[in-house]
Amino acid sequence: MKLATLKNARRDGRLVVVSRDLAKAVDAAPVAATMREAIENWSAAEPGLQKLYDALNAGQARDAFAFDPGQAMAPLPRSHQFVDASAFLNHGDIMERAYNLTVKKTPGVAVLVPRQGDDFRGPRDDYEFPAEADQCDFEGEFAVITDDVPMGATPAEALGHVRLVTILNDVSMRGHLFRELQMGFGLVQAKPATIFAPVAVTPDELGDAWKDGRVHLDMKVSRNGEWFGHPNGREMDFGFGEMIAHIAYNRRLGAGFVLGSGTVSNKGYEQVGSACLAERRAIETLAHGEARTGFLKFGEQLRFEVLDGAGQSVFGAIEVRFVPFERKSAA
Amino acid sequence: MKLATLKNARRDGRLVVVSRDLAKAVDAAPVAATMREAIENWSAAEPGLQKLYDALNAGQARDAFAFDPGQAMAPLPRSHQFVDASAFLNHGDIMERAYNLTVKKTPGVAVLVPRQGDDFRGPRDDYEFPAEADQCDFEGEFAVITDDVPMGATPAEALGHVRLVTILNDVSMRGHLFRELQMGFGLVQAKPATIFAPVAVTPDELGDAWKDGRVHLDMKVSRNGEWFGHPNGREMDFGFGEMIAHIAYNRRLGAGFVLGSGTVSNKGYEQVGSACLAERRAIETLAHGEARTGFLKFGEQLRFEVLDGAGQSVFGAIEVRFVPFERKSAA
Repeated sequence: MKLATLKNARRDGRLVVVSRDLAKAVDAAPVAATMREAIENWSAAEPGLQKLYDALNAGQARDAFAFDPGQAMAPLPRSHQFVDASAFLNHGDIMERAYNLTVKKTPGVAVLVPRQGDDFRGPRDDYEFPAEADQCDFEGEFAVITDDVPMGATPAEALGHVRLVTILNDVSMRGHLFRELQMGFGLVQAKPATIFAPVAVTPDELGDAWKDGRVHLDMKVSRNGEWFGHPNGREMDFGFGEMIAHIAYNRRLGAGFVLGSGTVSNKGYEQVGSACLAERRAIETLAHGEARTGFLKFGEQLRFEVLDGAGQSVFGAIEVRFVPFERKSAA
Repeated sequence: MKLATLKNARRDGRLVVVSRDLAKAVDAAPVAATMREAIENWSAAEPGLQKLYDALNAGQARDAFAFDPGQAMAPLPRSHQFVDASAFLNHGDIMERAYNLTVKKTPGVAVLVPRQGDDFRGPRDDYEFPAEADQCDFEGEFAVITDDVPMGATPAEALGHVRLVTILNDVSMRGHLFRELQMGFGLVQAKPATIFAPVAVTPDELGDAWKDGRVHLDMKVSRNGEWFGHPNGREMDFGFGEMIAHIAYNRRLGAGFVLGSGTVSNKGYEQVGSACLAERRAIETLAHGEARTGFLKFGEQLRFEVLDGAGQSVFGAIEVRFVPFERKSAA
């Protein structure tokens, strides 16, 4: 099934069930008022939500209305734990070769970046940032949302706690990245708020494309209406289950835990392009000795979308415009 | 005023107002049912909570009951953004000298470590961890909780959003630290769940001891009943306001944001001791060429407490026992 959260002036918004074709929605309040409520009580909520979904797809849901992604918040507007991985080693390899970096990786362990969960952004909201000198970049990623994962869960158990899948744009400020990487304790100014697709879907919705804890579909990325890349999720070097189990080695994960895949990146990048500016710049640097693609300027627009085998948009599109941050008044 | 959250089988517990002497409590539900509700609506909730606090201290609160820290959860049991700083440079200096580390710090910017907020632990709950080989350590810290901080807030504005102050034990697994530090993207297995004091207090409760965004009081730490250290918060090299403003440069901070000070550490460590095992081990290494103090074994107990000028415990004590993690059943 497909779920979204609509704006209602509350921090957690209002949960709706969305039809498979993304055309219609119906209020989920009879089952769960918010995504938080649903994910914290998933076993109890899931059957009721599924009934609403079936009725909606059959054109039999009472009080169905047109689904407007412009009214969507992030499917889960806030999380108490968000970790962003870098699970496509190809991306790191390109970056390390282009910039002579050495990341001392542990074999079998993905790079994992603890992040903030207090301000997930909706798919169509203008994105403010302070200065073009911050070097605004994007990273198109798959992401999963779990219910409660016990400490010590195995990869298979962890994968069983993946209740929803979605996509995100991990907005990255490269002007702050190397300074913060050098300190070595984590990323703050380099990683401001993250933008999510309008819809999150249960894994069954992906059919055969959900396999080995990976999404075997293309991440279509365009910049100002022009193709930028369409790398496929199947080349992920670590499955979501393995990574969740690594994190859960000595901690419990609360329901609503979000794990991002890291920039989708493929070995055949000459054909499929990239899902991130820094990667394309690194490829250009390797090929021409210099980066030719610039970071985002104010006013630029990005689009991220994933289609299934039948050409249907799975999660709806992230369509976002980047604008200058203007300080309102004294806080 | 002083606030605590009592267990009630719900994820966010039940907010209570606690008397200045920590002896009595009264239900805060007429004003706010949970700390989350209070901090998300602070201006509206604060006067009502203050009234309850005044009545409780005057012995005039209806339905007051004995406050039992054994029933306390963390004052805010979950947060959507928790950052732990390393704001006492003395601590880092000792560590770098002892272990020949070089952290490439940016002048004027504290080390900031993004962390998870889904499983804050109460002050008296046994703390499970998988193996003594993980090298379990502690870090006694001050921490603040803010309401909503707008993007671009100045240090002074940011400090004005500090609504509560408390203490925490940043449990650290040193066996995973250097591996994760080398990767450079953040700490995961090295930093499992964090333990909080029973009570959080408004800054006015600290009187003159709350100055320049710092808590000018001793952090008393004991291990198995023996003195371990009592370093003072006044030597913090970055104020909470400055650090919050740095984080808010290009992000909004949602109400309930938690910022830790990092291990309290003083230049006069020969007199005042340490609030962390790794620091004492580093001091021993500098003095004797080897560490003599061991990491925590199963069954050991720690205590953290801060007294005010009159000898009154400000936040109540963290008293925690470390025990082996036992896997329950298949998840």
